[in-house]
Amino acid sequence: MSATIIDGRAAAERLRHRVAGRTAELRANGLVPGLAVVLVGEDPASKIYVASKTKQAEEAGIRHFDHRLAATATTAELLQLVRELNANPDVHGILVQLPLPNGVDSAAVLAAIDPAKDVDGFHAVNAGKLALGEEATVPCTPLGCLILIREVLPDMRGKRAVVIGRSNIVGKPMAQLLLQNDCTVTIAHSRTRDLPALCAEAEILVAAIGRPKAIQGEWVRPGAVVVDVGINRIDDGSGKSKVVGDVDFASAVTRAGAITPVPGGVGPMTIACLLMNTVNAAIRSRLGASVELLRP
Amino acid sequence: MSATIIDGRAAAERLRHRVAGRTAELRANGLVPGLAVVLVGEDPASKIYVASKTKQAEEAGIRHFDHRLAATATTAELLQLVRELNANPDVHGILVQLPLPNGVDSAAVLAAIDPAKDVDGFHAVNAGKLALGEEATVPCTPLGCLILIREVLPDMRGKRAVVIGRSNIVGKPMAQLLLQNDCTVTIAHSRTRDLPALCAEAEILVAAIGRPKAIQGEWVRPGAVVVDVGINRIDDGSGKSKVVGDVDFASAVTRAGAITPVPGGVGPMTIACLLMNTVNAAIRSRLGASVELLRP
Repeated sequence: MSATIIDGRAAAERLRHRVAGRTAELRANGLVPGLAVVLVGEDPASKIYVASKTKQAEEAGIRHFDHRLAATATTAELLQLVRELNANPDVHGILVQLPLPNGVDSAAVLAAIDPAKDVDGFHAVNAGKLALGEEATVPCTPLGCLILIREVLPDMRGKRAVVIGRSNIVGKPMAQLLLQNDCTVTIAHSRTRDLPALCAEAEILVAAIGRPKAIQGEWVRPGAVVVDVGINRIDDGSGKSKVVGDVDFASAVTRAGAITPVPGGVGPMTIACLLMNTVNAAIRSRLGASVELLRP
Repeated sequence: MSATIIDGRAAAERLRHRVAGRTAELRANGLVPGLAVVLVGEDPASKIYVASKTKQAEEAGIRHFDHRLAATATTAELLQLVRELNANPDVHGILVQLPLPNGVDSAAVLAAIDPAKDVDGFHAVNAGKLALGEEATVPCTPLGCLILIREVLPDMRGKRAVVIGRSNIVGKPMAQLLLQNDCTVTIAHSRTRDLPALCAEAEILVAAIGRPKAIQGEWVRPGAVVVDVGINRIDDGSGKSKVVGDVDFASAVTRAGAITPVPGGVGPMTIACLLMNTVNAAIRSRLGASVELLRP
Protein backbone atom coordinates (compact mmCIF):
# COMPACT_ATOMS: atom_id res chain seq x y z
CA MET A 1 0.00 0.00 0.00
CA SER A 2 1.39 3.39 -0.91
CA ALA A 3 0.39 6.85 0.23
CA THR A 4 -1.46 9.45 -1.76
CA ILE A 5 1.14 11.90 -3.03
CA ILE A 6 -0.06 15.43 -2.31
CA ASP A 7 0.71 17.48 -5.40
CA GLY A 8 1.99 20.84 -4.21
CA ARG A 9 2.65 22.10 -7.72
CA ALA A 10 -0.96 21.54 -8.75
CA ALA A 11 -2.30 23.04 -5.52
CA ALA A 12 -0.06 26.07 -5.94
CA GLU A 13 -1.26 26.52 -9.50
CA ARG A 14 -4.88 26.43 -8.37
CA LEU A 15 -4.14 29.03 -5.68
CA ARG A 16 -2.27 31.27 -8.13
CA HIS A 17 -5.27 30.98 -10.43
CA ARG A 18 -7.59 32.15 -7.63
CA VAL A 19 -5.19 35.00 -6.83
CA ALA A 20 -5.05 36.06 -10.48
CA GLY A 21 -8.84 36.01 -10.71
CA ARG A 22 -9.19 38.22 -7.66
CA THR A 23 -6.46 40.55 -8.87
CA ALA A 24 -8.31 41.00 -12.16
CA GLU A 25 -11.47 41.94 -10.24
CA LEU A 26 -9.55 44.43 -8.11
CA ARG A 27 -7.86 45.97 -11.12
CA ALA A 28 -11.26 46.35 -12.79
CA ASN A 29 -12.21 48.37 -9.71
CA GLY A 30 -9.11 50.52 -9.91
CA LEU A 31 -7.06 48.75 -7.23
CA VAL A 32 -3.75 47.31 -8.44
CA PRO A 33 -2.17 45.11 -5.76
CA GLY A 34 1.47 46.11 -5.30
CA LEU A 35 4.37 44.15 -3.81
CA ALA A 36 7.71 45.73 -2.96
CA VAL A 37 10.60 43.28 -3.12
CA VAL A 38 13.79 44.25 -1.33
CA LEU A 39 16.96 42.31 -2.11
CA VAL A 40 20.24 43.22 -0.45
CA GLY A 41 23.55 41.87 -1.72
CA GLU A 42 24.40 39.08 -4.12
CA ASP A 43 23.40 35.86 -2.38
CA PRO A 44 22.73 33.48 -5.30
CA ALA A 45 19.89 31.57 -3.62
CA SER A 46 18.19 34.83 -2.60
CA LYS A 47 18.43 36.08 -6.18
CA ILE A 48 16.71 32.95 -7.45
CA TYR A 49 13.94 33.22 -4.85
CA VAL A 50 13.37 36.89 -5.61
CA ALA A 51 13.27 36.22 -9.36
CA SER A 52 10.59 33.55 -8.80
CA LYS A 53 8.56 35.81 -6.57
CA THR A 54 8.56 38.75 -8.96
CA LYS A 55 7.81 36.52 -11.96
CA GLN A 56 4.87 34.86 -10.23
CA ALA A 57 3.61 38.20 -8.92
CA GLU A 58 3.66 39.53 -12.46
CA GLU A 59 1.80 36.52 -13.83
CA ALA A 60 -0.87 36.98 -11.17
CA GLY A 61 -1.36 40.63 -12.09
CA ILE A 62 0.41 42.00 -9.04
CA ARG A 63 2.56 45.06 -9.68
CA HIS A 64 6.03 44.70 -8.21
CA PHE A 65 8.46 47.36 -7.08
CA ASP A 66 12.02 46.06 -7.11
CA HIS A 67 14.60 47.46 -4.75
CA ARG A 68 18.15 46.13 -5.12
CA LEU A 69 20.68 47.33 -2.56
CA ALA A 70 24.40 46.64 -2.42
CA ALA A 71 25.71 44.24 0.22
CA THR A 72 27.21 47.28 1.91
CA ALA A 73 23.77 48.76 2.68
CA THR A 74 23.38 49.83 6.30
CA THR A 75 20.57 49.27 8.75
CA ALA A 76 19.77 52.98 8.54
CA GLU A 77 19.43 52.84 4.76
CA LEU A 78 17.13 49.84 4.97
CA LEU A 79 15.02 51.48 7.67
CA GLN A 80 14.70 54.55 5.48
CA LEU A 81 13.59 52.42 2.53
CA VAL A 82 11.06 50.57 4.66
CA ARG A 83 9.64 53.89 5.87
CA GLU A 84 9.22 55.05 2.29
CA LEU A 85 7.50 51.82 1.30
CA ASN A 86 5.24 52.01 4.38
CA ALA A 87 4.16 55.47 3.22
CA ASN A 88 3.66 54.52 -0.43
CA PRO A 89 -0.06 53.86 -1.04
CA ASP A 90 0.70 51.81 -4.17
CA VAL A 91 2.65 49.30 -2.12
CA HIS A 92 0.39 46.86 -0.25
CA GLY A 93 3.01 44.27 0.64
CA ILE A 94 6.68 44.58 1.58
CA LEU A 95 8.96 41.61 1.22
CA VAL A 96 12.49 41.90 2.57
CA GLN A 97 14.37 38.85 1.30
CA LEU A 98 16.28 37.09 4.06
CA PRO A 99 19.03 36.59 5.04
CA LEU A 100 20.23 40.18 5.20
CA PRO A 101 24.02 40.73 5.16
CA ASN A 102 25.90 40.44 8.42
CA GLY A 103 25.99 43.74 10.20
CA VAL A 104 22.42 44.64 9.27
CA ASP A 105 19.98 44.48 12.20
CA SER A 106 17.43 42.18 10.56
CA ALA A 107 15.05 42.24 13.51
CA ALA A 108 14.93 46.05 13.47
CA VAL A 109 14.27 46.11 9.72
CA LEU A 110 11.46 43.56 9.92
CA ALA A 111 9.92 45.27 12.96
CA ALA A 112 9.84 48.56 11.01
CA ILE A 113 7.52 47.14 8.34
CA ASP A 114 3.93 48.32 8.75
CA PRO A 115 2.11 45.20 10.05
CA ALA A 116 -0.59 45.83 7.43
CA LYS A 117 2.07 45.43 4.71
CA ASP A 118 3.91 42.54 6.39
CA VAL A 119 2.97 39.91 3.79
CA ASP A 120 5.51 37.47 5.22
CA GLY A 121 3.61 37.50 8.51
CA PHE A 122 6.81 37.83 10.53
CA HIS A 123 5.87 40.97 12.51
CA ALA A 124 5.04 40.61 16.22
CA VAL A 125 1.61 42.15 15.63
CA ASN A 126 0.75 39.44 13.12
CA ALA A 127 2.21 36.69 15.29
CA GLY A 128 0.13 38.05 18.15
CA LYS A 129 -3.08 38.26 16.16
CA LEU A 130 -2.57 34.70 14.97
CA ALA A 131 -2.01 33.56 18.56
CA LEU A 132 -5.15 35.40 19.72
CA GLY A 133 -7.26 34.00 16.87
CA GLU A 134 -7.76 37.41 15.28
CA GLU A 135 -7.57 38.21 11.56
CA ALA A 136 -3.84 38.01 10.87
CA THR A 137 -1.36 37.73 8.04
CA VAL A 138 0.05 34.25 8.47
CA PRO A 139 3.58 33.20 7.40
CA CYS A 140 3.49 31.68 3.94
CA THR A 141 5.04 28.28 4.54
CA PRO A 142 2.73 27.07 7.32
CA LEU A 143 -0.21 28.56 5.42
CA GLY A 144 0.78 26.47 2.42
CA CYS A 145 1.09 23.37 4.61
CA LEU A 146 -2.41 23.94 5.96
CA ILE A 147 -3.84 24.11 2.46
CA LEU A 148 -2.09 20.87 1.51
CA ILE A 149 -3.34 19.07 4.62
CA ARG A 150 -6.90 20.22 3.84
CA GLU A 151 -6.64 18.64 0.39
CA VAL A 152 -6.70 15.21 1.99
CA LEU A 153 -8.21 15.99 5.41
CA PRO A 154 -10.93 18.62 5.11
CA ASP A 155 -12.02 18.10 8.72
CA MET A 156 -9.11 18.08 11.19
CA ARG A 157 -11.20 18.27 14.36
CA GLY A 158 -9.75 16.22 17.18
CA LYS A 159 -6.83 14.89 15.12
CA ARG A 160 -3.52 14.40 16.89
CA ALA A 161 -1.06 16.70 15.14
CA VAL A 162 2.67 16.76 15.81
CA VAL A 163 4.81 19.62 14.54
CA ILE A 164 8.54 18.93 14.64
CA GLY A 165 10.42 22.21 14.80
CA ARG A 166 9.64 25.40 16.71
CA SER A 167 10.88 28.18 14.45
CA ASN A 168 9.02 31.48 14.39
CA ILE A 169 8.36 31.22 10.66
CA VAL A 170 7.23 27.59 10.38
CA GLY A 171 6.82 25.47 13.51
CA LYS A 172 5.15 27.88 15.89
CA PRO A 173 2.65 29.42 13.42
CA MET A 174 1.94 25.92 12.05
CA ALA A 175 0.96 24.82 15.56
CA GLN A 176 -1.35 27.82 15.87
CA LEU A 177 -3.07 27.01 12.57
CA LEU A 178 -3.59 23.37 13.51
CA LEU A 179 -4.96 24.43 16.89
CA GLN A 180 -7.39 26.81 15.17
CA ASN A 181 -8.50 23.83 13.12
CA ASP A 182 -9.27 21.97 16.35
CA CYS A 183 -6.37 19.54 16.28
CA THR A 184 -4.74 18.39 19.50
CA VAL A 185 -1.31 19.82 18.80
CA THR A 186 2.12 18.84 20.07
CA ILE A 187 5.26 20.85 19.31
CA ALA A 188 8.46 18.81 19.32
CA HIS A 189 12.03 20.05 18.92
CA SER A 190 15.67 19.27 19.53
CA ARG A 191 15.07 18.72 23.25
CA THR A 192 12.22 16.28 22.70
CA ARG A 193 12.81 12.80 24.06
CA ASP A 194 11.67 9.72 22.16
CA LEU A 195 10.64 11.43 18.97
CA PRO A 196 9.77 8.10 17.29
CA ALA A 197 7.13 7.38 19.94
CA LEU A 198 5.70 10.85 19.52
CA CYS A 199 5.55 10.50 15.74
CA ALA A 200 3.73 7.20 16.18
CA GLU A 201 0.83 9.14 17.74
CA ALA A 202 0.55 11.71 14.95
CA GLU A 203 -2.38 11.59 12.56
CA ILE A 204 -0.89 14.76 11.08
CA LEU A 205 2.90 15.03 11.09
CA VAL A 206 4.64 18.22 9.99
CA ALA A 207 8.44 18.02 9.77
CA ALA A 208 10.28 21.35 9.79
CA ILE A 209 13.72 20.81 11.24
CA GLY A 210 16.06 21.22 8.26
CA ARG A 211 17.89 17.91 8.57
CA PRO A 212 17.87 15.59 5.56
CA LYS A 213 15.78 12.43 6.01
CA ALA A 214 15.83 12.83 9.79
CA ILE A 215 12.31 11.43 10.17
CA GLN A 216 12.28 7.70 9.48
CA GLY A 217 9.43 6.00 7.71
CA GLU A 218 9.06 3.46 10.51
CA TRP A 219 8.19 6.28 12.90
CA VAL A 220 5.17 7.30 10.84
CA ARG A 221 1.77 6.25 12.12
CA PRO A 222 0.04 4.12 9.47
CA GLY A 223 -2.38 6.26 7.52
CA ALA A 224 -0.97 9.58 8.77
CA VAL A 225 -0.84 12.75 6.70
CA VAL A 226 2.85 13.67 6.45
CA VAL A 227 3.91 17.18 5.45
CA ASP A 228 7.60 17.67 4.76
CA VAL A 229 8.80 21.27 4.97
CA GLY A 230 12.49 20.41 4.60
CA ILE A 231 14.49 21.54 1.57
CA ASN A 232 17.95 20.04 2.06
CA ARG A 233 20.58 19.87 -0.64
CA ILE A 234 22.69 16.73 -0.36
CA ASP A 235 25.20 14.82 -2.46
CA ASP A 236 23.37 12.16 -4.46
CA GLY A 237 26.34 9.80 -4.18
CA SER A 238 27.78 10.53 -7.60
CA GLY A 239 29.07 13.99 -6.77
CA LYS A 240 25.95 15.74 -7.98
CA SER A 241 23.58 17.42 -5.55
CA LYS A 242 19.89 16.75 -5.08
CA VAL A 243 17.19 18.13 -2.85
CA VAL A 244 15.58 15.98 -0.17
CA GLY A 245 13.17 16.69 2.66
CA ASP A 246 13.30 16.17 6.42
CA VAL A 247 11.41 12.89 5.99
CA ASP A 248 12.84 9.72 4.49
CA PHE A 249 10.30 9.65 1.69
CA ALA A 250 10.99 6.14 0.36
CA SER A 251 10.17 4.50 3.68
CA ALA A 252 7.49 6.96 4.80
CA VAL A 253 5.45 6.61 1.60
CA THR A 254 4.81 2.95 2.43
CA ARG A 255 3.15 3.79 5.77
CA ALA A 256 1.60 7.24 5.40
CA GLY A 257 -1.93 7.78 4.15
CA ALA A 258 -0.82 10.89 2.29
CA ILE A 259 2.52 12.64 1.98
CA THR A 260 4.01 15.73 0.36
CA PRO A 261 7.06 15.05 -1.82
CA VAL A 262 10.26 17.11 -1.91
CA PRO A 263 10.54 18.80 -4.32
CA GLY A 264 7.01 19.49 -5.50
CA GLY A 265 5.23 19.59 -2.14
CA VAL A 266 5.31 22.50 0.28
CA GLY A 267 7.89 24.48 -1.69
CA PRO A 268 5.65 25.66 -4.54
CA MET A 269 2.91 26.68 -2.09
CA THR A 270 5.04 29.25 -0.30
CA ILE A 271 5.18 31.82 -3.10
CA ALA A 272 1.52 31.24 -3.98
CA CYS A 273 0.63 32.06 -0.38
CA LEU A 274 2.78 35.19 -0.55
CA LEU A 275 0.70 36.32 -3.51
CA MET A 276 -2.51 35.54 -1.61
CA ASN A 277 -1.27 37.56 1.39
CA THR A 278 -0.42 40.46 -0.93
CA VAL A 279 -3.84 40.52 -2.54
CA ASN A 280 -5.50 40.35 0.88
CA ALA A 281 -3.33 43.24 2.11
CA ALA A 282 -4.45 45.24 -0.92
CA ILE A 283 -8.10 44.45 -0.18
CA ARG A 284 -7.74 45.41 3.47
CA SER A 285 -5.97 48.65 2.56
CA ARG A 286 -9.10 49.93 0.96
CA LEU A 287 -11.70 50.39 3.67
CA GLY A 288 -15.14 49.36 2.65
CA ALA A 289 -13.87 47.22 -0.21
CA SER A 290 -16.77 45.19 -1.50
CA VAL A 291 -14.43 42.31 -2.29
CA GLU A 292 -14.00 39.48 0.17
CA LEU A 293 -10.59 38.32 1.35
CA LEU A 294 -9.11 35.21 -0.21
CA ARG A 295 -9.23 32.33 2.24
CA PRO A 296 -6.69 29.52 2.41
CA MET B 1 2.45 8.10 48.91
CA SER B 2 1.16 11.64 48.66
CA ALA B 3 2.24 14.53 46.46
CA THR B 4 4.18 17.58 47.51
CA ILE B 5 1.65 20.38 47.91
CA ILE B 6 2.94 23.47 46.11
CA ASP B 7 2.23 26.42 48.36
CA GLY B 8 1.04 29.25 46.13
CA ARG B 9 0.43 31.60 49.04
CA ALA B 10 4.02 31.32 50.21
CA ALA B 11 5.40 31.65 46.67
CA ALA B 12 3.23 34.72 46.09
CA GLU B 13 4.45 36.24 49.32
CA ARG B 14 8.06 35.71 48.29
CA LEU B 15 7.37 37.31 44.90
CA ARG B 16 5.58 40.27 46.49
CA HIS B 17 8.57 40.67 48.77
CA ARG B 18 10.90 40.81 45.75
CA VAL B 19 8.59 43.31 44.07
CA ALA B 20 8.49 45.50 47.17
CA GLY B 21 12.28 45.43 47.41
CA ARG B 22 12.65 46.50 43.81
CA THR B 23 10.00 49.19 44.21
CA ALA B 24 11.88 50.62 47.16
CA GLU B 25 15.05 50.80 45.07
CA LEU B 26 13.19 52.51 42.24
CA ARG B 27 11.56 55.01 44.58
CA ALA B 28 14.98 55.82 46.05
CA ASN B 29 15.97 56.68 42.47
CA GLY B 30 12.94 58.87 41.95
CA LEU B 31 10.82 56.38 39.99
CA VAL B 32 7.48 55.50 41.60
CA PRO B 33 5.83 52.60 39.77
CA GLY B 34 2.21 53.48 39.00
CA LEU B 35 -0.75 51.23 38.22
CA ALA B 36 -4.05 52.53 36.88
CA VAL B 37 -6.99 50.34 37.82
CA VAL B 38 -10.17 50.77 35.80
CA LEU B 39 -13.39 49.29 37.16
CA VAL B 40 -16.64 49.69 35.28
CA GLY B 41 -19.98 48.92 36.90
CA GLU B 42 -20.90 47.10 40.07
CA ASP B 43 -19.99 43.45 39.48
CA PRO B 44 -19.36 42.13 43.02
CA ALA B 45 -16.58 39.70 42.05
CA SER B 46 -14.80 42.41 40.04
CA LYS B 47 -15.01 44.76 43.02
CA ILE B 48 -13.36 42.16 45.23
CA TYR B 49 -10.57 41.50 42.70
CA VAL B 50 -9.92 45.20 42.24
CA ALA B 51 -9.81 45.78 45.99
CA SER B 52 -7.22 43.00 46.35
CA LYS B 53 -5.14 44.35 43.51
CA THR B 54 -5.05 47.91 44.82
CA LYS B 55 -4.34 46.75 48.37
CA GLN B 56 -1.45 44.55 47.29
CA ALA B 57 -0.11 47.24 44.97
CA GLU B 58 -0.12 49.66 47.89
CA GLU B 59 1.67 47.21 50.16
CA ALA B 60 4.34 46.70 47.50
CA GLY B 61 4.95 50.44 47.21
CA ILE B 62 3.18 50.81 43.87
CA ARG B 63 1.11 53.95 43.47
CA HIS B 64 -2.38 53.22 42.19
CA PHE B 65 -4.73 55.42 40.25
CA ASP B 66 -8.32 54.31 40.69
CA HIS B 67 -10.89 54.93 38.00
CA ARG B 68 -14.46 53.88 38.77
CA LEU B 69 -16.99 54.28 35.96
CA ALA B 70 -20.71 53.67 36.02
CA ALA B 71 -22.08 50.57 34.30
CA THR B 72 -23.53 52.93 31.70
CA ALA B 73 -20.04 53.97 30.51
CA THR B 74 -19.66 53.83 26.73
CA THR B 75 -16.87 52.43 24.60
CA ALA B 76 -15.97 55.98 23.60
CA GLU B 77 -15.62 57.06 27.23
CA LEU B 78 -13.40 54.10 28.01
CA LEU B 79 -11.25 54.72 24.94
CA GLN B 80 -10.84 58.33 26.03
CA LEU B 81 -9.78 57.24 29.52
CA VAL B 82 -7.29 54.73 28.10
CA ARG B 83 -5.80 57.44 25.88
CA GLU B 84 -5.33 59.69 28.91
CA LEU B 85 -3.69 56.90 30.88
CA ASN B 86 -1.44 56.03 27.93
CA ALA B 87 -0.28 59.65 27.91
CA ASN B 88 0.23 59.93 31.66
CA PRO B 89 3.92 59.39 32.47
CA ASP B 90 3.14 58.50 36.09
CA VAL B 91 1.10 55.49 34.93
CA HIS B 92 3.28 52.52 33.97
CA GLY B 93 0.60 49.87 33.96
CA ILE B 94 -3.06 49.94 32.96
CA LEU B 95 -5.42 47.31 34.25
CA VAL B 96 -8.96 47.24 32.87
CA GLN B 97 -10.89 44.83 35.06
CA LEU B 98 -12.89 42.32 33.01
CA PRO B 99 -15.63 41.60 32.23
CA LEU B 100 -16.74 44.99 30.90
CA PRO B 101 -20.51 45.62 30.75
CA ASN B 102 -22.44 44.33 27.75
CA GLY B 103 -22.43 46.88 24.99
CA VAL B 104 -18.84 47.92 25.60
CA ASP B 105 -16.42 46.78 22.91
CA SER B 106 -13.92 45.06 25.21
CA ALA B 107 -11.56 44.11 22.40
CA ALA B 108 -11.33 47.70 21.21
CA VAL B 109 -10.65 48.96 24.74
CA LEU B 110 -7.92 46.40 25.39
CA ALA B 111 -6.34 47.01 21.97
CA ALA B 112 -6.16 50.74 22.75
CA ILE B 113 -3.88 50.20 25.73
CA ASP B 114 -0.26 51.09 24.99
CA PRO B 115 1.48 47.66 24.79
CA ALA B 116 4.21 49.03 27.06
CA LYS B 117 1.56 49.62 29.75
CA ASP B 118 -0.37 46.39 29.09
CA VAL B 119 0.51 44.72 32.41
CA ASP B 120 -2.11 42.01 31.82
CA GLY B 121 -0.21 40.92 28.70
CA PHE B 122 -3.43 40.68 26.67
CA HIS B 123 -2.40 42.97 23.80
CA ALA B 124 -1.60 41.40 20.40
CA VAL B 125 1.87 42.96 20.49
CA ASN B 126 2.67 41.19 23.73
CA ALA B 127 1.12 37.92 22.57
CA GLY B 128 3.25 38.21 19.43
CA LYS B 129 6.47 38.98 21.26
CA LEU B 130 5.85 36.02 23.53
CA ALA B 131 5.25 33.79 20.50
CA LEU B 132 8.44 35.06 18.83
CA GLY B 133 10.52 34.61 21.97
CA GLU B 134 11.11 38.34 22.39
CA GLU B 135 10.97 40.31 25.64
CA ALA B 136 7.22 40.44 26.34
CA THR B 137 4.77 41.16 29.09
CA VAL B 138 3.25 37.76 29.80
CA PRO B 139 -0.30 37.20 31.14
CA CYS B 140 -0.22 36.90 34.92
CA THR B 141 -1.87 33.53 35.44
CA PRO B 142 0.41 31.41 33.21
CA LEU B 143 3.39 33.36 34.53
CA GLY B 144 2.36 32.39 38.06
CA CYS B 145 1.96 28.76 36.97
CA LEU B 146 5.46 28.76 35.53
CA ILE B 147 6.91 30.02 38.80
CA LEU B 148 5.09 27.32 40.74
CA ILE B 149 6.27 24.58 38.37
CA ARG B 150 9.85 25.82 38.75
CA GLU B 151 9.59 25.45 42.53
CA VAL B 152 9.54 21.69 42.12
CA LEU B 153 11.06 21.28 38.65
CA PRO B 154 13.85 23.79 38.08
CA ASP B 155 14.90 22.08 34.84
CA MET B 156 11.99 21.35 32.49
CA ARG B 157 14.05 20.44 29.43
CA GLY B 158 12.54 17.62 27.44
CA LYS B 159 9.60 17.12 29.81
CA ARG B 160 6.27 16.16 28.28
CA ALA B 161 3.88 18.97 29.18
CA VAL B 162 0.15 18.90 28.50
CA VAL B 163 -1.91 22.08 28.77
CA ILE B 164 -5.64 21.49 28.88
CA GLY B 165 -7.43 24.60 27.67
CA ARG B 166 -6.60 26.97 24.85
CA SER B 167 -7.74 30.37 26.07
CA ASN B 168 -5.80 33.46 25.09
CA ILE B 169 -5.14 34.40 28.69
CA VAL B 170 -4.09 31.03 30.12
CA GLY B 171 -3.75 27.99 27.87
CA LYS B 172 -2.03 29.46 24.84
CA PRO B 173 0.51 31.65 26.67
CA MET B 174 1.15 28.77 29.10
CA ALA B 175 2.07 26.57 26.15
CA GLN B 176 4.46 29.24 24.89
CA LEU B 177 6.17 29.51 28.28
CA LEU B 178 6.59 25.74 28.58
CA LEU B 179 7.98 25.62 25.04
CA GLN B 180 10.47 28.36 25.91
CA ASN B 181 11.52 26.18 28.81
CA ASP B 182 12.22 23.34 26.36
CA CYS B 183 9.26 21.15 27.21
CA THR B 184 7.60 19.07 24.51
CA VAL B 185 4.20 20.73 24.70
CA THR B 186 0.74 19.48 23.80
CA ILE B 187 -2.35 21.70 23.87
CA ALA B 188 -5.59 19.86 24.51
CA HIS B 189 -9.11 21.26 24.47
CA SER B 190 -12.78 20.42 24.12
CA ARG B 191 -12.21 18.67 20.78
CA THR B 192 -9.43 16.46 22.11
CA ARG B 193 -10.12 12.75 21.94
CA ASP B 194 -9.05 10.43 24.75
CA LEU B 195 -7.97 13.07 27.21
CA PRO B 196 -7.18 10.42 29.88
CA ALA B 197 -4.56 8.82 27.62
CA LEU B 198 -3.03 12.21 26.89
CA CYS B 199 -2.90 13.10 30.59
CA ALA B 200 -1.15 9.78 31.24
CA GLU B 201 1.79 11.03 29.16
CA ALA B 202 2.15 14.35 30.97
CA GLU B 203 5.08 14.94 33.28
CA ILE B 204 3.68 18.46 33.65
CA LEU B 205 -0.10 18.79 33.53
CA VAL B 206 -1.75 22.22 33.53
CA ALA B 207 -5.54 22.21 33.79
CA ALA B 208 -7.30 25.40 32.70
CA ILE B 209 -10.75 24.50 31.49
CA GLY B 210 -13.06 25.92 34.16
CA ARG B 211 -14.99 22.74 34.94
CA PRO B 212 -15.02 21.52 38.54
CA LYS B 213 -13.01 18.35 39.13
CA ALA B 214 -13.08 17.47 35.42
CA ILE B 215 -9.59 15.95 35.54
CA GLN B 216 -9.67 12.64 37.37
CA GLY B 217 -6.84 11.55 39.62
CA GLU B 218 -6.57 8.22 37.79
CA TRP B 219 -5.61 10.10 34.62
CA VAL B 220 -2.56 11.63 36.26
CA ARG B 221 0.81 10.13 35.42
CA PRO B 222 2.47 8.94 38.60
CA GLY B 223 4.96 11.54 39.78
CA ALA B 224 3.64 14.30 37.51
CA VAL B 225 3.61 17.98 38.43
CA VAL B 226 -0.06 19.02 38.37
CA VAL B 227 -1.02 22.71 38.16
CA ASP B 228 -4.69 23.48 38.66
CA VAL B 229 -5.79 26.85 37.29
CA GLY B 230 -9.51 26.28 37.90
CA ILE B 231 -11.45 28.36 40.39
CA ASN B 232 -14.96 26.86 40.40
CA ARG B 233 -17.57 27.64 43.00
CA ILE B 234 -19.77 24.63 43.78
CA ASP B 235 -22.29 23.56 46.38
CA ASP B 236 -20.51 21.67 49.14
CA GLY B 237 -23.53 19.40 49.65
CA SER B 238 -24.92 21.22 52.65
CA GLY B 239 -26.13 24.26 50.75
CA LYS B 240 -22.96 26.25 51.29
CA SER B 241 -20.59 26.99 48.45
CA LYS B 242 -16.94 26.11 48.23
CA VAL B 243 -14.20 26.63 45.67
CA VAL B 244 -12.67 23.69 43.82
CA GLY B 245 -10.26 23.38 40.92
CA ASP B 246 -10.44 21.67 37.55
CA VAL B 247 -8.63 18.66 39.01
CA ASP B 248 -10.13 16.19 41.45
CA PHE B 249 -7.60 16.97 44.14
CA ALA B 250 -8.37 14.10 46.52
CA SER B 251 -7.61 11.45 43.92
CA ALA B 252 -4.87 13.33 42.07
CA VAL B 253 -2.84 13.99 45.22
CA THR B 254 -2.29 10.25 45.64
CA ARG B 255 -0.61 9.93 42.20
CA ALA B 256 1.03 13.27 41.44
CA GLY B 257 4.58 14.08 42.48
CA ALA B 258 3.55 17.66 43.20
CA ILE B 259 0.25 19.50 42.93
CA THR B 260 -1.14 22.97 43.45
CA PRO B 261 -4.18 23.14 45.73
CA VAL B 262 -7.32 25.20 45.14
CA PRO B 263 -7.55 27.59 46.86
CA GLY B 264 -3.99 28.52 47.78
CA GLY B 265 -2.23 27.47 44.57
CA VAL B 266 -2.26 29.44 41.34
CA GLY B 267 -4.78 32.02 42.56
CA PRO B 268 -2.51 34.00 44.87
CA MET B 269 0.25 34.11 42.24
CA THR B 270 -1.83 36.02 39.72
CA ILE B 271 -1.88 39.36 41.53
CA ALA B 272 1.76 39.00 42.58
CA CYS B 273 2.66 38.58 38.89
CA LEU B 274 0.58 41.66 38.03
CA LEU B 275 2.72 43.62 40.48
CA MET B 276 5.90 42.19 38.93
CA ASN B 277 4.68 43.17 35.46
CA THR B 278 3.92 46.68 36.69
CA VAL B 279 7.35 47.17 38.21
CA ASN B 280 8.99 45.86 35.04
CA ALA B 281 6.90 48.24 32.94
CA ALA B 282 8.09 51.09 35.15
CA ILE B 283 11.71 50.01 34.73
CA ARG B 284 11.36 49.74 30.95
CA SER B 285 9.67 53.15 30.77
CA ARG B 286 12.85 54.82 31.88
CA LEU B 287 15.45 54.32 29.19
CA GLY B 288 18.88 53.55 30.52
CA ALA B 289 17.54 52.49 33.89
CA SER B 290 20.39 50.88 35.77
CA VAL B 291 17.98 48.49 37.45
CA GLU B 292 17.46 45.01 36.01
CA LEU B 293 14.01 43.64 35.28
CA LEU B 294 12.46 41.26 37.76
CA ARG B 295 12.49 37.73 36.37
CA PRO B 296 9.87 35.10 37.10
